[in-house]
Formats: sequence, C-alpha cells, structure tokens
Amino acid sequence: MIFSKQFDKELLEHLGNVATMIRDIASTKDGYKFLISLLFHKRAMLYFTQASTRTFLSFMAALQILGISWSEIRDPSVSSEYKGESPLDSMRMFSSYCDIIIMRSKIPDFAECCAYLMNDLDDFNQRNVPIINGGAGADEHPTQALLDIYTIQREFAFVSKKDSSKWTLFDELRKKYPGLKRGLDGKVYGFCGDVGRGRTVRSLTNLLSQYDDMTFYFVSPDHPKLKLPANFKNELLDQGVDVKEYDDLNEIVDKVDMLYMTRIQHEHDSAEDKEFFKKLDYSKYYLSKDKVERMKDYAAILHPFPRDTRAKEIPAEIDNDPRAKYFAQARNGIWIRAALIAYLFDADGKIASHYQKHFSDYHDYNVEVL
Amino acid sequence: MIFSKQFDKELLEHLGNVATMIRDIASTKDGYKFLISLLFHKRAMLYFTQASTRTFLSFMAALQILGISWSEIRDPSVSSEYKGESPLDSMRMFSSYCDIIIMRSKIPDFAECCAYLMNDLDDFNQRNVPIINGGAGADEHPTQALLDIYTIQREFAFVSKKDSSKWTLFDELRKKYPGLKRGLDGKVYGFCGDVGRGRTVRSLTNLLSQYDDMTFYFVSPDHPKLKLPANFKNELLDQGVDVKEYDDLNEIVDKVDMLYMTRIQHEHDSAEDKEFFKKLDYSKYYLSKDKVERMKDYAAILHPFPRDTRAKEIPAEIDNDPRAKYFAQARNGIWIRAALIAYLFDADGKIASHYQKHFSDYHDYNVEVL
Amino acid sequence: MIFSKQFDKELLEHLGNVATMIRDIASTKDGYKFLISLLFHKRAMLYFTQASTRTFLSFMAALQILGISWSEIRDPSVSSEYKGESPLDSMRMFSSYCDIIIMRSKIPDFAECCAYLMNDLDDFNQRNVPIINGGAGADEHPTQALLDIYTIQREFAFVSKKDSSKWTLFDELRKKYPGLKRGLDGKVYGFCGDVGRGRTVRSLTNLLSQYDDMTFYFVSPDHPKLKLPANFKNELLDQGVDVKEYDDLNEIVDKVDMLYMTRIQHEHDSAEDKEFFKKLDYSKYYLSKDKVERMKDYAAILHPFPRDTRAKEIPAEIDNDPRAKYFAQARNGIWIRAALIAYLFDADGKIASHYQKHFSDYHDYNVEVL
Repeated sequence: MIFSKQFDKELLEHLGNVATMIRDIASTKDGYKFLISLLFHKRAMLYFTQASTRTFLSFMAALQILGISWSEIRDPSVSSEYKGESPLDSMRMFSSYCDIIIMRSKIPDFAECCAYLMNDLDDFNQRNVPIINGGAGADEHPTQALLDIYTIQREFAFVSKKDSSKWTLFDELRKKYPGLKRGLDGKVYGFCGDVGRGRTVRSLTNLLSQYDDMTFYFVSPDHPKLKLPANFKNELLDQGVDVKEYDDLNEIVDKVDMLYMTRIQHEHDSAEDKEFFKKLDYSKYYLSKDKVERMKDYAAILHPFPRDTRAKEIPAEIDNDPRAKYFAQARNGIWIRAALIAYLFDADGKIASHYQKHFSDYHDYNVEVL
Repeated sequence: MIFSKQFDKELLEHLGNVATMIRDIASTKDGYKFLISLLFHKRAMLYFTQASTRTFLSFMAALQILGISWSEIRDPSVSSEYKGESPLDSMRMFSSYCDIIIMRSKIPDFAECCAYLMNDLDDFNQRNVPIINGGAGADEHPTQALLDIYTIQREFAFVSKKDSSKWTLFDELRKKYPGLKRGLDGKVYGFCGDVGRGRTVRSLTNLLSQYDDMTFYFVSPDHPKLKLPANFKNELLDQGVDVKEYDDLNEIVDKVDMLYMTRIQHEHDSAEDKEFFKKLDYSKYYLSKDKVERMKDYAAILHPFPRDTRAKEIPAEIDNDPRAKYFAQARNGIWIRAALIAYLFDADGKIASHYQKHFSDYHDYNVEVL
Repeated sequence: MIFSKQFDKELLEHLGNVATMIRDIASTKDGYKFLISLLFHKRAMLYFTQASTRTFLSFMAALQILGISWSEIRDPSVSSEYKGESPLDSMRMFSSYCDIIIMRSKIPDFAECCAYLMNDLDDFNQRNVPIINGGAGADEHPTQALLDIYTIQREFAFVSKKDSSKWTLFDELRKKYPGLKRGLDGKVYGFCGDVGRGRTVRSLTNLLSQYDDMTFYFVSPDHPKLKLPANFKNELLDQGVDVKEYDDLNEIVDKVDMLYMTRIQHEHDSAEDKEFFKKLDYSKYYLSKDKVERMKDYAAILHPFPRDTRAKEIPAEIDNDPRAKYFAQARNGIWIRAALIAYLFDADGKIASHYQKHFSDYHDYNVEVL
C-alpha cells in the first residue's frame, strides 16, 4: 500500500464501511474482545525513522484495536549502515521478525523500493510481508488521504445519534437544503491555504476526483509555490472535475459543502518568498467566527493538522462550532487505518459477519454511533 | 489526578486495600488472567517528555497488570511545536488516540493545564480523557506520595506470611512493644536529609497529616534551603501534627516507627551552598549499621530513591536488614498505581468482588501475601 | 544466562527441539493462541543501552510469541547515575518491575555483575529475576551462538517440506553423498573472513567443539588481528577438534558442509592495519557465484549479519541460491530465543506436551515445517 492511486472508489467505500463497523464494534467491551481476537497472531513493525507522532500513534492504536503485537524502529541511526549494510538488507532482515511493516522514512521512494523488494522475494517464493506507506518524505501520504475521505464519508452520511423513526438529521437538513443528497458525489469542496505545497491536498483531491459531478474551489495566495500547480489542475480537469481558483476565502465560504483548511508551510520559504509574505493580507486565507457563521449548517471544516496557532488559520474559538470536524478527523484515522490493516490481513469479512450478527440495526453507510 | 491533596484518608485506605487485592490476585496465573481481562479495551498514553525511568516503568507495569494497551511519547521534540502548534492542540490530538494520559512534563503546571482542558471539553460535551500527574517538574509527585503511604500502610499492618492461628507477627511484636497498634494513626515518623528541597517529603507529610495523633521529626542540616520551611511547618502544626526539628539522626533513631531517608540534592546547590557543605559533618544525617541496630524491631526505613551511593546516606550493608523497605517500596509503586488506574476506570469494585470470592481468608487491611 | 559455555550439548539439542516445536505450533492461529497463553503473567525488561536493532527485535518477537509483556530501556542517560546512584541499585530497582531482564550494555561484564547481584539476593531470600546476556560489549553474545547452532541443527536434519513416504530429501542427498549422516557430528565447518575479531566465530566454535569428530577450517588474511588467535586454536585442539588454517576460500569451498562468512571489521583498524589492507587481495576471502557453485548441494552458507554490501563478502546475486541460509538464520533467532525464555520459565514441558498432542507426525529432530 504505497500510493493513494491504489484506492478506487469501490475500495474507498468498502474501507469506510469496515472502519465504521470496527468503530461500532469497539464501543462495547465484548466487541473489543472480538476485535482483538482477530489478529493476535500477527506482529507489525512501525518503522518510523521520520518522526510523525500523530501518524505513529494512530497506527499504533489501530494495531492495538486489532490485537496485533508491534515493535518499533524510530531512530534511523540504529541501522547497521555504518558497517556497510544496504538499506534493503536491513529491511529484509527486519521483515523476518514481523508480518507487516508500516514505514515512514526520510529517504525518497524508500517505501516504494521496499515494496518492490518484497514483490521480488515473492517471485522467488521467499518469505515477504506487506508494506504500508505511512507518509514518506515529500511524497504521498496515502493513509492521510484515506482518513480525510472517511471523514467526508461520515459527514455526508448525514446520520445522527439522535436519529429515530420520527426524526432524522437528514430530513431536518432537507427542510433547509431541499436538494441535499447523501454521499460524496455532486458536492462542492473548498481547499484553502497552501494548495501548492500541501501534499495532503494533492492526495485527497486525487481520490475525490474519482467521484461524480465534483466541484473543487481552491483559495490560495497568488504565488507560484502556493497556488494550484498547472499540471495538477489539468489532471483534475481531465477527470471531469469543475475546478475554480480564488484569492479570498470570503468568495466561497457560503458555497462549499466541505472546507479543507491548511497551514501555510513557511518552513519551505526562500528569502524571496519571505518578502512576498511580508506584504500578504493573510486574513483572506484564514477562517474567522464570521466566516464560519456564513457556512452551510452541515458544512464540514477539516484540517490535516497541525494548525499554526500563531498564524491562526483556524482560531481556537471555532473549535466548539458543530462544523469543526478536525479533531474528529484525527480520531477517524484510527478506525480507517484499522480497516486498512484488517483488509490487508483478510479479516474484513469476519468483521462484517460479526457486525451483521450483533448490530440489529445494520447500516449501509457510515454512521455516527460512537 | 493532579494534586496529592485530591486524596483524602478514606480514599487512601481504599486504594491501599485495592492495591493489596491486586497484588494477591496477581500472584496466581488464574488471578493474573482475571486482572488482564478487566481493562483490555482501554488504551493509555505515557506522555513522559521529562525522563523518569522508575516512574515510567512502574506505571507501565501497572498498565500491563490491568491488561491496558499503551503507547508512549518520550521525546519532547516529536511534537509539532516548530510548526506553530500549541501544546494544548497537541494534547487534545494525543487524547483522541487513547483513554487515559499519564504525564510528566518539564513545563510547570502543564499536567494541570491539560486537566483543565479536559474539563472544558467535558463541559462542551466533547470527548475527553482522565489525566494522571506522573510527577511534573519541581511540582508535586502525587503517585510517589501514594506509594509511600501504601508502603507505610503495609508495614503498619504488622502481618506476616508466617501468621497462623497459633502465632502472629503482631502478637509477637506486642510482647516487646505492649502499646503497639495497627495502622498509621498515633505513630512517630522521622524525615531525614534534604527536608527543604525534597518534594517527596512535602507530598508525603501532606497526606500523613490527615491521620490522627501524628508526630513528625525532621532531621536536616541547619541551612535555610535544607531545613523544614517555616510555612510548611505551620501547615503541619495547623493540622494538629506534633512537629520537632533535630540536627542529628542519633537523637531520634530509636524513637521513630518509620524513618524516611532522602538524598541531599547537591545539583541545586549555589556556590555559597557548596562552601557550607564543605564544613558539614554529614554523618549526622546518614544511616549506619549502628544506628539501624538501635531502631525498633518493626521500624521501617524508606527512601524515595535514587540514593547517593557516593555519599552513602544509606550504606549498602543495611540492604539486608529486615527494616530496610526501600526496594519493597519501589515495587509497591506498581500495585498502588494499578489500584489508582483501576479506580479511575471504575474497575475496583470488580476487583473487590473477585478477591472476596477467591481468597477465603479475606483481609480487612493491607496484608503481606506476595 | 551469561556465557555460551553454560550450554552443553544436551541442552543445545533440547533448545533446538523446543524452538522447532514453538515454530510449528505458531504456524496456526490456534497454536499461537496456545503459546501466548503460556506466560502472559510475566513481564520482561529489554535493557538495551547498547544499540542492537536485530537482537532487540528478535527478542521482542520471542517475547510476543510467548505472550510476555515487555518494557524497554534503550537510552543509557535515563539512569540516575548523575544523582550518584550505583548501576547495581538501578538494576535491582528495575528488576523489581519485571520477571526477567534481557540486557545488552556497553559496560564490560555488566550483565555478569547483575547476574551475581541476583544470585546474592537469592542467597538472602530476596526477590530476584533471571538475566539473559543479549550480547555485551566486546564480550560474548551467547544467543547469537545459539541461533547459529540452531540453524545448523535444522540444516543438518536434511528434512524437507516435500518429504513423503516415497521420497525424502535425505535419501535424495545420499544418492550423491553416500556417507552423509544427520546431525552436527563429523562435519566439516568453514569460517571465513575476520576470524580474529569476530566474537560470533569464537562463541559458535566454542559450542560446536562439544560435538564429536569435528573439523574446522579457518580462512583469513595473514594478519595478527584477523587470523585465528593461538590460544583460541589451542583450546579447540584440546577439545579434539581437527583445526586447519588457509589463506584462500578457494581451497576449502568444495570441502565444507557449512560455510560461516563474516564481515571484516574495519572499524577496529589501526593506521598500520589500513596500510596492510590497501595491499590485500580481498577476493580470496569473499564468496562469488563461481565458488558457491563448487560447494556441496546441501552445504549451508551462514553469516551473522550485517554483511558489508560495499565490500561484498557475499554478493547479493547469491541470495537466491538454495545454499544461502543467512536470512533464515536471522529468523531462526526468534524461535531459539523463544525456546530459551520458555526454558527459563519452565514452560518447555507444556510446549512439548502440546506438540505431541497436536502434531500427529511427531518429529524427533529439528524439522522444516514453516
């Protein structure tokens, strides 16, 4: 599992369903007991030589929920490279101690190389293990895209814990928004901030573009590094997405069904860029209480985090607004990663059987239960 | 669980009982199996950005005994603060991956701030988790005080593995010490060494002062930083404690029921202090084989550890004396921390039921079994 | 478990058998469930203040297979030595949190000292735990020797997954090599490369010399630091081993039943040594496709790893040759370490009972099943 392009729409929907089933099952102690009985005979290795606390913790929680044992490598200096060992020798050695490797390395394309090594071993009928890309360097971060998609799936299910035979959130919303439909198709998605340098935007729009009748609004400062790259725009247009670019969040805030905020990544600025930013009116790319109040009632605000609390692209006062979904989004990462791992170990079928047996009110779509 | 003042006498006695029950239950494989079945559906985070190997390992063992999964954060540099993230954003994010956070940070009051954040989230009906203070900076270290109290509870139960219907340790001791009573009330407690700078002395005496008819003897060099601070003394007097100060351990060694030794914390010395220490006769504040032989048979010697093996406030030759309880004291930390965590997750009731069912010889008080 | 000399031939054979039983049992989910039910009530400490990722991961996997909880100490600076604590105080404290310590320290003989401390505690009837030497400093690395022996045991069992009532690997091999016998006795063992500085060679030959009718060929550059040390040679001769020394791998490659390759440890070179190596024809001590093709069909190539992929003592093109056993060798470390730990906790009997009950085709010797 190296590229986000490996997920087609069908798999995305399947993984989202499995994630929600795992979440529901895990909400009772008996359910949790069932989950940790699924894969206790598997051992995972978290190879995180590039630090990423959130992703690491999220994967670890996912492993724990499925009862998988884990070991970790976090310090890149632990390897025997100074003794002349090749990184591929190290990885093959490490793979001999476990059943799956989740990796995040600073070396560009290293996860990809390791996956090819495993494929080669498979060709020679030798022991090999699956590899999950935990977000390598400046490359892709496919499980972040996955949790973003899963968050949107859950939000656009328009299901509430309070739903009953007499009242549902969806019916309530349709009074005010008569054309509202469930699901990701046909919605308007806003992406705001550092569109050019944020790999999460690229991975997410990549996956979203598989859906039908999509509209993407990009809001970013008019700077070659920050705005939507031309080749990226063309890809989206080729996929049939309706793409528009803006210079002020105010222009789209009331139109979007989802707003994906990002941090402006000043750590990549050149001296010249710094001059540009001195003159920039940041307020055009930042949220405020006012702007949020103009958003649709059901619109979801996402952010891949961390947010910049000095810059305040999302001020803390918005955190308790019901549209603020960025903390829920982080927690969604646990469930979707657990779903992905269960899928790779072929345990998703058992999860679905258990769910259908124990949850009388079986949901076809991602449902807010926990 | 942030301050040692959160423990009243009743809770201290309850936690001590639960700790001893956990210890007894854990002594058989079947009992251990019961314990790890209690909270396997919970995940803890050990957030120890200030290193403290003992406390960390003790909490980890406690979690393992209760079957709780854990993850850890030990490197403060892993956080996204350089990207402008606020520490509270980090903690809320981390809390979304777990069910409890045990934290020890260098940042003063950080555990307290995080606890308030969780309270705020609770007010807004948002997901939050309990926080245990694992000993923050120069502040309090409430679970150290808890393990000290538990050690004293166990010692002053005067119960032995050899107790039978014909002979008990308590009867034996009462031949020599006719007035001896069980429990913490009415005993004489000695505290020796760095009384002024040792936060463990402060936290422990704070808890002990809730008991009745208490006598505290403090022995320390006559130096403003090392001796009993005036405000601290007044607090104890206000609580009705009989407080006396001495300059030589010899004056109290035969009178105390418990002797709490501490290391002189030279790492906090100023240049001026160093001059003072050059002239100091340390032997007045250090234990020796001779002094120990003058102590009561049942008197317990405690030390929060580490001890200074160059200075030798407790020479190694005392380690095998039956009054030396400092290694047992460290191990007590496992059981009392397990008791605290079980209590926070409301599993103490199940533990008590199991204990009453499986241990025919039910103990009302802390009992030496393991 | 500190020295490789603690293993006699009988124990080596027993541990090898237990390792293979664990491996076979772990190959099914039900079997794995049995294994993790054996020692879930035990907690291990991995005290690895000297980094060694492979050994660490291998021990961790072994613990996980037996269901043992673990904690780790990897950073030597975490100890309280700066506060004047003695290393033995630290270790006794750490031992109070666990049931076994696996240690690898930079301090020479530290594992040995700790083992003596534990013995002393035992004499005083105080709590103590077993200690396994995980390879201390320049000293011995007994569990590496153990996994080497186990690998040889498995290879010289001449058993194949394809064995049936009509065809066995052993019969097949005996057509070409009529005198071939099962087991380690009477074989020819080659050791090539840095014979003088490789502690693995020393530990392994030490154990192998207990077997009967042994022939050891050593191939190394003619340099006082690299060639077989005289005292070491005399020890082997005293044990009745037939020892020969060579200067070129070509001279022995077709004669050996096992070839143990090693990396030349240039990190220990003096300036003078570097001069020597400039003129050296390395090809005499390195494997090549040609040389491997001249080896016996069943001969096993081992390497303690890491190998030097710049120097290429074993070029990668050999990895897929059936004689290349060095990756299998690493994985064998998991099973033999699990066997050792099971043995120390007296769980080997239960493993054997389970094996005899569930594996109808009971093997008397180490058998390739997984």
